[in-house]
Amino acid sequence: MPSKKVTIIGAGLAGPLLAIGLVERGFEVEIHERRPDLRRVAQSAGRSINLAVSARGIHALQQAGLWHAVSELTVPMRGRMMHAQSGDLSFQPYGKDETEFISSLSRADLNIALLDAAQARGVRIHFDSRMVGADLPTGRLRFRNERTGEETNLETTVVIGVDGANSALRSEMLRHTRLNFSQAFPDYGYKELTIPAGSGMDRNALHIWPRGSYMLIALPNIDETFACILFLPFEGSVSFQQIGLRDEIKPFFQAQFPDALAMMPHLVENYAASPLGSMVTIKCSPWHAEGRFLLLGDAAHAIVPFFGQGLNCSFEDVTVLLAIVDQYDANWPLVFSTLEQARKPNTDAIADLALENFVEMRDRVADPAFLLRKKVELALEARFPGRFVPKYAMVTFHRVPYSVALSRGIVQDGILTELCGGIGQVEDIDFSKAAKLIEPLTPLEFA
Amino acid sequence: MPSKKVTIIGAGLAGPLLAIGLVERGFEVEIHERRPDLRRVAQSAGRSINLAVSARGIHALQQAGLWHAVSELTVPMRGRMMHAQSGDLSFQPYGKDETEFISSLSRADLNIALLDAAQARGVRIHFDSRMVGADLPTGRLRFRNERTGEETNLETTVVIGVDGANSALRSEMLRHTRLNFSQAFPDYGYKELTIPAGSGMDRNALHIWPRGSYMLIALPNIDETFACILFLPFEGSVSFQQIGLRDEIKPFFQAQFPDALAMMPHLVENYAASPLGSMVTIKCSPWHAEGRFLLLGDAAHAIVPFFGQGLNCSFEDVTVLLAIVDQYDANWPLVFSTLEQARKPNTDAIADLALENFVEMRDRVADPAFLLRKKVELALEARFPGRFVPKYAMVTFHRVPYSVALSRGIVQDGILTELCGGIGQVEDIDFSKAAKLIEPLTPLEFA
Repeated sequence: MPSKKVTIIGAGLAGPLLAIGLVERGFEVEIHERRPDLRRVAQSAGRSINLAVSARGIHALQQAGLWHAVSELTVPMRGRMMHAQSGDLSFQPYGKDETEFISSLSRADLNIALLDAAQARGVRIHFDSRMVGADLPTGRLRFRNERTGEETNLETTVVIGVDGANSALRSEMLRHTRLNFSQAFPDYGYKELTIPAGSGMDRNALHIWPRGSYMLIALPNIDETFACILFLPFEGSVSFQQIGLRDEIKPFFQAQFPDALAMMPHLVENYAASPLGSMVTIKCSPWHAEGRFLLLGDAAHAIVPFFGQGLNCSFEDVTVLLAIVDQYDANWPLVFSTLEQARKPNTDAIADLALENFVEMRDRVADPAFLLRKKVELALEARFPGRFVPKYAMVTFHRVPYSVALSRGIVQDGILTELCGGIGQVEDIDFSKAAKLIEPLTPLEFA
Repeated sequence: MPSKKVTIIGAGLAGPLLAIGLVERGFEVEIHERRPDLRRVAQSAGRSINLAVSARGIHALQQAGLWHAVSELTVPMRGRMMHAQSGDLSFQPYGKDETEFISSLSRADLNIALLDAAQARGVRIHFDSRMVGADLPTGRLRFRNERTGEETNLETTVVIGVDGANSALRSEMLRHTRLNFSQAFPDYGYKELTIPAGSGMDRNALHIWPRGSYMLIALPNIDETFACILFLPFEGSVSFQQIGLRDEIKPFFQAQFPDALAMMPHLVENYAASPLGSMVTIKCSPWHAEGRFLLLGDAAHAIVPFFGQGLNCSFEDVTVLLAIVDQYDANWPLVFSTLEQARKPNTDAIADLALENFVEMRDRVADPAFLLRKKVELALEARFPGRFVPKYAMVTFHRVPYSVALSRGIVQDGILTELCGGIGQVEDIDFSKAAKLIEPLTPLEFA
């Protein structure tokens, strides 16, 4: 009889969510997490980037009965607020009306909510338990207790590695199987900074200081502070290498982000204390091994953060996996291969979309022609609902497969270029031409 | 003063060749090799695939003054000899005349010649010396003596890792730098087999038994035997997984390769004893770290063997590197970045060409339309010398950059399709149409 016992590696965000879904389906689930319990031990900095929850993440949390509680921890962001060097502000809405926004949420707050909910439903979570070895054919895992140093073996039947971009399970698969694998690092790093409460900045926006080859962004927290992230190249004329010393950061902000500097009294200390982070796109295949091991979430497909889809994509993995389990129950080899077939074209697509969106955020949003294009998109959506849906909306406000959003986005980009040529304002759209161009698009079916 | 002392990891083929070139330029070179000296200790099987030396490899060996001696160890192969299931033979020449052939050579014979030559020129080679750690910023390496188990540190200034597809230096760079990296495994494995002397097969050809989704090939050795390689999918209806048992291989050969079976009295023992090999395409970037470490050859860009270019590509790396050293001497950071800029588009191109050529060998060579196309290519080359050069010839008989061979090959494929449409024999070529199609191609400059 197929096993109803599942071992999950990683108690980050997708791990506990998956555990909840499996427990509800009658499985017995244990999680091993290499870090301490963040409800008891203060965690190191560097993992606190705020998350932007949108349709896919919300849907998964609704399925687990958690969205109502989690939504209390979020701050709605209705659009992008661009800060020019002069301090001038311009606002670009994300969606077609007030029902379309994204939600800023602290990673730690969400993690705590998920850990509490998983344990309340009977999931056993072992913290400080690092997987240090796996015998893939037999399923025997080796764990080290990070507090005591003690090592123990665990016989498992099914193991799902939701252990992030540096997945330990993926390392074992790299060592012992023919795993097709790629990792690609953009030339950019990041540092996290803070704007304290009382800044007076609009809390219902994602703030961007777009500067062509780099940018600063800020996301609202529920405590009235803002989490800021500075993205710069690692090397080059304007880079983290050049701005390495404490006394170089203030003049740089004074020149490039003067309005932000005025709101950041602790910039110099913040900058010096914040570790330099890197980002990576990871793709691999197959996600599964020996019919009993599966990689999921960032472990299978880490992406850069610029579309705000890392969390949403991983949570959608969970939604899809649970739907396949509903169909095939514990026939794990079939479940795993069905999942990868269904999901990989979509995770590959969001990886590319996320890289593209970095250029949009740091550069294009400062271009009036681009902002007009965004307005034209929304006007077309209003005129042709369900038939012309902006790429951003397909990814963020709907659960259209990412691969469809990518391919349809390319077609729509051609249409937009055609319609925006020579017009200076959204009122000038030639709607009869638009109707002809849009007519061949099949209507989208929203889940 | 920049260092004239160079440490090379790996005494396979490109390592000693590079060492010879550097010693001739006044550098002091030491090589560390994890394996025992193959002149003293019999090596394990599985690395004995015969090599096909062609223009790029020959050029590099000529530069080192070694081609005259090495050529004595080779057997010329003038074309492909296709074996149909019926036993019928058909021959397709590789080149335009008898000056164009490839040379079959045993890996071990070439390795011995290179080790002897390197040591005769003053290169110190440490065998059984495995690199087990590297501190990249300081250049301190850690080696383990594989016979005694003793570990020692070595302070280095410049280190070149020519340590193959499983490079230990690359592993260190993966662990400690932001190395962009990909590995891709075809779904095929291979086993090496032997045809003993006295088979009566034509020795001046590469023999292929093309069977669509798989193939058997045989390359001549100087001792009148043939080295055979069976390429099959790992899994599926006809696969190594299906033909796992000793008593399954003979019926399979009887059905698919009956003429080969008649020449292979030890097939069953051979098959059981031969380890199942895998192949991989590896790409990475940057090839260098800290201005003092460089990956070269398969360590930087492993490719599948189907174009016979693995050795030739690695040897061309050495040719290019030495030319850059002639220009910039021991300015290593500049040498390394110049090398990668010059070389990476070409190593990426040959990786793709090698994958393509597998389909040609296992499938297309059995197709009369394809063989006609090959004849048309040669006729065009004869009529338009230097302007229409078949892709195979650009890669194999000339030192046209691989990236040029790839892009020009695509254009030429279009021309061939145009000219071969509707003709049944090479005599029917419309040469005036050909002249018009070929006219826009710039003449190739051969190095």
